[in-house]
Amino acid sequence: MPGNSFGQAFKITTWGESHGPGVGVVVDGCPPQIPLGAEDIQAMLDRRRPGSSPASTSRKEPDRAVIMSGVFQGQTTGTPILIMVYNKDADPQAYAPYADLFRPGHGDITYLAKYGIRDWRGGGRSSARETVGRVAAGAVARVLLEREKVTIRAYTIELGGIKAIERRLEVIDRNRFYCPDPEAVKKMEQRVRTVKRKGDSVGGIVEILAKGVPKGLGEPVFDKLDADLAKALMGIGAVKGVEIGSGFDAPGKLGSENNDPITPAGFLTNNAGGILAGISNGDDIIIRVAVKPIPSILIEQQTIDLNGNPKTISTRGRHDIAAIPRINVVCEAMVSLVLTDHLLRQKAIQ
Amino acid sequence: MPGNSFGQAFKITTWGESHGPGVGVVVDGCPPQIPLGAEDIQAMLDRRRPGSSPASTSRKEPDRAVIMSGVFQGQTTGTPILIMVYNKDADPQAYAPYADLFRPGHGDITYLAKYGIRDWRGGGRSSARETVGRVAAGAVARVLLEREKVTIRAYTIELGGIKAIERRLEVIDRNRFYCPDPEAVKKMEQRVRTVKRKGDSVGGIVEILAKGVPKGLGEPVFDKLDADLAKALMGIGAVKGVEIGSGFDAPGKLGSENNDPITPAGFLTNNAGGILAGISNGDDIIIRVAVKPIPSILIEQQTIDLNGNPKTISTRGRHDIAAIPRINVVCEAMVSLVLTDHLLRQKAIQ
Amino acid sequence: MPGNSFGQAFKITTWGESHGPGVGVVVDGCPPQIPLGAEDIQAMLDRRRPGSSPASTSRKEPDRAVIMSGVFQGQTTGTPILIMVYNKDADPQAYAPYADLFRPGHGDITYLAKYGIRDWRGGGRSSARETVGRVAAGAVARVLLEREKVTIRAYTIELGGIKAIERRLEVIDRNRFYCPDPEAVKKMEQRVRTVKRKGDSVGGIVEILAKGVPKGLGEPVFDKLDADLAKALMGIGAVKGVEIGSGFDAPGKLGSENNDPITPAGFLTNNAGGILAGISNGDDIIIRVAVKPIPSILIEQQTIDLNGNPKTISTRGRHDIAAIPRINVVCEAMVSLVLTDHLLRQKAIQ
Amino acid sequence: MPGNSFGQAFKITTWGESHGPGVGVVVDGCPPQIPLGAEDIQAMLDRRRPGSSPASTSRKEPDRAVIMSGVFQGQTTGTPILIMVYNKDADPQAYAPYADLFRPGHGDITYLAKYGIRDWRGGGRSSARETVGRVAAGAVARVLLEREKVTIRAYTIELGGIKAIERRLEVIDRNRFYCPDPEAVKKMEQRVRTVKRKGDSVGGIVEILAKGVPKGLGEPVFDKLDADLAKALMGIGAVKGVEIGSGFDAPGKLGSENNDPITPAGFLTNNAGGILAGISNGDDIIIRVAVKPIPSILIEQQTIDLNGNPKTISTRGRHDIAAIPRINVVCEAMVSLVLTDHLLRQKAIQ
Repeated sequence: MPGNSFGQAFKITTWGESHGPGVGVVVDGCPPQIPLGAEDIQAMLDRRRPGSSPASTSRKEPDRAVIMSGVFQGQTTGTPILIMVYNKDADPQAYAPYADLFRPGHGDITYLAKYGIRDWRGGGRSSARETVGRVAAGAVARVLLEREKVTIRAYTIELGGIKAIERRLEVIDRNRFYCPDPEAVKKMEQRVRTVKRKGDSVGGIVEILAKGVPKGLGEPVFDKLDADLAKALMGIGAVKGVEIGSGFDAPGKLGSENNDPITPAGFLTNNAGGILAGISNGDDIIIRVAVKPIPSILIEQQTIDLNGNPKTISTRGRHDIAAIPRINVVCEAMVSLVLTDHLLRQKAIQ
Repeated sequence: MPGNSFGQAFKITTWGESHGPGVGVVVDGCPPQIPLGAEDIQAMLDRRRPGSSPASTSRKEPDRAVIMSGVFQGQTTGTPILIMVYNKDADPQAYAPYADLFRPGHGDITYLAKYGIRDWRGGGRSSARETVGRVAAGAVARVLLEREKVTIRAYTIELGGIKAIERRLEVIDRNRFYCPDPEAVKKMEQRVRTVKRKGDSVGGIVEILAKGVPKGLGEPVFDKLDADLAKALMGIGAVKGVEIGSGFDAPGKLGSENNDPITPAGFLTNNAGGILAGISNGDDIIIRVAVKPIPSILIEQQTIDLNGNPKTISTRGRHDIAAIPRINVVCEAMVSLVLTDHLLRQKAIQ
Repeated sequence: MPGNSFGQAFKITTWGESHGPGVGVVVDGCPPQIPLGAEDIQAMLDRRRPGSSPASTSRKEPDRAVIMSGVFQGQTTGTPILIMVYNKDADPQAYAPYADLFRPGHGDITYLAKYGIRDWRGGGRSSARETVGRVAAGAVARVLLEREKVTIRAYTIELGGIKAIERRLEVIDRNRFYCPDPEAVKKMEQRVRTVKRKGDSVGGIVEILAKGVPKGLGEPVFDKLDADLAKALMGIGAVKGVEIGSGFDAPGKLGSENNDPITPAGFLTNNAGGILAGISNGDDIIIRVAVKPIPSILIEQQTIDLNGNPKTISTRGRHDIAAIPRINVVCEAMVSLVLTDHLLRQKAIQ
Repeated sequence: MPGNSFGQAFKITTWGESHGPGVGVVVDGCPPQIPLGAEDIQAMLDRRRPGSSPASTSRKEPDRAVIMSGVFQGQTTGTPILIMVYNKDADPQAYAPYADLFRPGHGDITYLAKYGIRDWRGGGRSSARETVGRVAAGAVARVLLEREKVTIRAYTIELGGIKAIERRLEVIDRNRFYCPDPEAVKKMEQRVRTVKRKGDSVGGIVEILAKGVPKGLGEPVFDKLDADLAKALMGIGAVKGVEIGSGFDAPGKLGSENNDPITPAGFLTNNAGGILAGISNGDDIIIRVAVKPIPSILIEQQTIDLNGNPKTISTRGRHDIAAIPRINVVCEAMVSLVLTDHLLRQKAIQ
């Protein structure tokens, strides 16, 4: 009933607050004899680190992954893998001014409603810092998926209202926004600078592409592959929408347009987004998520304090102005976790 | 690991194929001493019955709900409630011509990939008939929610490209599409007739509104209320996208526009869609789902047979041309299940 | 959280009361393409039917198994298998005299404490009738186990204080008590007759032997194979104790006596009962369960009524005087379910 | 499917090997606003520490509990509590001689069969060291149970064949074996000394008594309170049997002897052990577990190496000669976890 675990065959449990001693994850269900080292996890953690991008905060988080269990002589043993990252740059005092205010767009007000208590230092579990555990676990999943020749990439197709037209995946890693359209990148940088100057923030859309996923993954009915992907991605803090394949364009299409014709050489189109009736069809899996603007902004906003009095608030923390591009690697991690889980689940009925 | 159960505290398991002896559901976790009768379930089943709408199939399905267990002298006992509906109108022969063809847009090809065997009579578990169990379970959940003053309605805001502009909820039950805009209804009827004549099908968008949901429901991190809603709705056969609150409009907004200001009287706007950081904030919960066009169409389409030979197919079954409006009650059921589950889960930590 | 499901990869959910319309089970997770017919289930149900034994009730329960889903053309499809048995011999009036009395040794008083309501007709879910669903599901598991050359037998090694000395498994099916010692059988029959005449009841010990279980089944730590077996068996109504291998004799042994020496030809002894550190070692799995005397007896006993007034009660229903031998097939079923579940779970990490 | 988690509403996941960097547990589902400090956990960990007893190893394990998350300003926040203990006394070299031998009575041979790889340093996850996480989680559960006036004690009623006759609970903490019979203690000390001199080891029986458990806890059918207790206790390494109430004496009793008569003042006897039909009846819960002798002994034993060659082995590590009394606190912890889980589960249906 508590909600900090994800997956059934490849099951992870994350723990830790943004301003406690550390954050991390337990990965349970990883098959044995898989080569795994801290460097596999570090590579993914480094990609979610803030820093170089103009859309990113100035916080320095070295985020050293420590494997505490489940790996022996460079191989997984089949037992739980505990991965831990110490919080080194925790400055709770930065949050003290907001300790009795509810930040608009944040979970402050709902956490208090749920628990009657709230760790006001940086959002507690609702902080983006919680995703360190997800990314670390996703890195383990990625090692398994690579053995099956499955690759997953998340890239930015919209930021601050600027849309990417092209899908040149080879340029993703060459720009700060993981955007596949060089022309759009320039406009995005301009847009981000303008908005930052005003103390405001922007949202965007991330597309996730999984190639090489074998046919037949996904469970009928409730645990459809797309249903589990939707949950995985909607469970990321800033995400307000998820669509697969033709997604929200499907309602405007006719059946004859939206169906993907089948030929001996494969599907002619991919409106399904690689998933039919909840089960992978062997085609590329394509998902898009709507990312809301970061709620922490310098612009003054209306709010109330713990006693219900009207107040104004301006969040002057060291915050990103967009969840993108840091959220991209979290999206990759969540998709990796879902696919790995269903890969293992499928083995059980074969 | 198998995927036919949903929920943790209020847990349901559906079973049954479209053309087997019957379909149904086991509801486990319903609190005791709740007045419940077959008529509560029947009322919801009747709403998903095909028939009157021009968008609906001509099949007659009486769908009599039979409660086999868990109710004694008109009250729930706290033990599993088995609800069963016999399949009376099952005509497997109608599907015989397609027994060795893969229908485009259907799960035929993926079910075979997954299981190596497939019940070709009407799609088996991927048939919309499976939703009988969901709606029956949703009816039980609804009884519980009504005791908490929670109401849930699903209505059509787009069909065949026609968008509803108004949200006049009082007219929903007065038209065949459960649409809140009488002007749009006229255009939808026209649109459906035109498309039907061409042997094609249409999709649409359903909006679900939950009022009266108490604050504090939802679990942090993975089992966020919106994450569970996304899974619940994306797990419905024809759904290709789910969004909450401002959804796919959020990416185009600034933080200052998308944040909902907080005042002593409540939130000034509801871009959050009633959920902040995965937990209900007491405001209306608003969700929209993208529904693809029904894949069964009279228009000839390319496909292959079991041996991989190219073929054409025209699905001449007694099919709806839109999943809407029958899917609407399924959406209501799934939202009811999620909210009830989290209501019960929340009790455990209080 | 509700407790009517069992297993993770091979997951069953039972439903139904002793005196409602029927009882049954949903089996979710059965691999596809397994030949299965109602006759496979019927054979097991027939073995739990009361009748011939002097220890058995006189109730006639034809118990016809009906498969409602999950099987197509004689093979499992990988989707949920609903097996149902109608209650034909339900005579709730027989229980009316006890409707406001708590029967000693029964769950009447605890069900009311838990639920605030209780189906007094025959014990509701605490009735032995609930085990119909377990046995039906166990029959499906047995089909899977037979393909792996695993065999499971439960036999009576003590009844009414009479202990079986021999373990002649070939005679089990030739006597009414499923007892492997012909001499003991004679004494048991005598004992049962004497006790029956006095209106009292007896308990006993059932031993379960699983042969051919592959090495490596079971999960470390909490889901140890013996832990899951203990839960499975202690979850049967009348069971008050479970032991594996040397069991309650182990405390009296020295380490040098209890350890099983390992040789190139295998283990020299089997004090482990086939399970080491929670994982099967390839040897026979041997379990014993302590079965309490049936609590329904003709002898007058002290009790109270719903208002707390002192009363006496004599349960004059058509009851067995021992849970043995009908419980034996339930034990076999539960062990089959655990082994099948772990067989499938093990596949996921390989 | 992986087996390192326990509980549903109060869910724990343990991790860590005996000779890795550390061991620990994540507790998910602990209600918020419960006062909790490291000292609460330390007190329980100290009780499982080896040391003073003649039955104990000479290893020094300071075992400092560190709370990494889920507690803020001395109170639980409702989010996951990660408790960690560093392994300070890890000496893997002590195990090097056995790296390619299977120790009789240990899980070496079955872990290798399951995983194809094995952490030979001290048994990996099958080491008693894994129970640090259980005891730490049990300490959190204990804090919750104390608020409900539930107390749990485990004490030794048999060791090395010496049985405790008396049940003087007030003397338990005054002797090294947590034994309630001072006369038996003297004989146990003598017995342990004798066996130790011979390089052998002993087993025993632990009784666990839970007082003040409210009526109505436990789920019908599979998750019976006694079934979950049986799983919890049989899942402890050295346990080979579990019985509740009259347990293995029940088979020798008549129904009229084993039934507990009910009077307005309560039950006259407690053969049920506080649980009827899987649900607590408000009486004391009494459980006994059979603990096998520690398999690590100095006496030479037959075994094989990784290549299947016959070898002999004498385990000269720093081992206890009995799991008792260190296992007692683990038994208390497991019973605490089960009762807390069912306390929270029960709230969800009320």
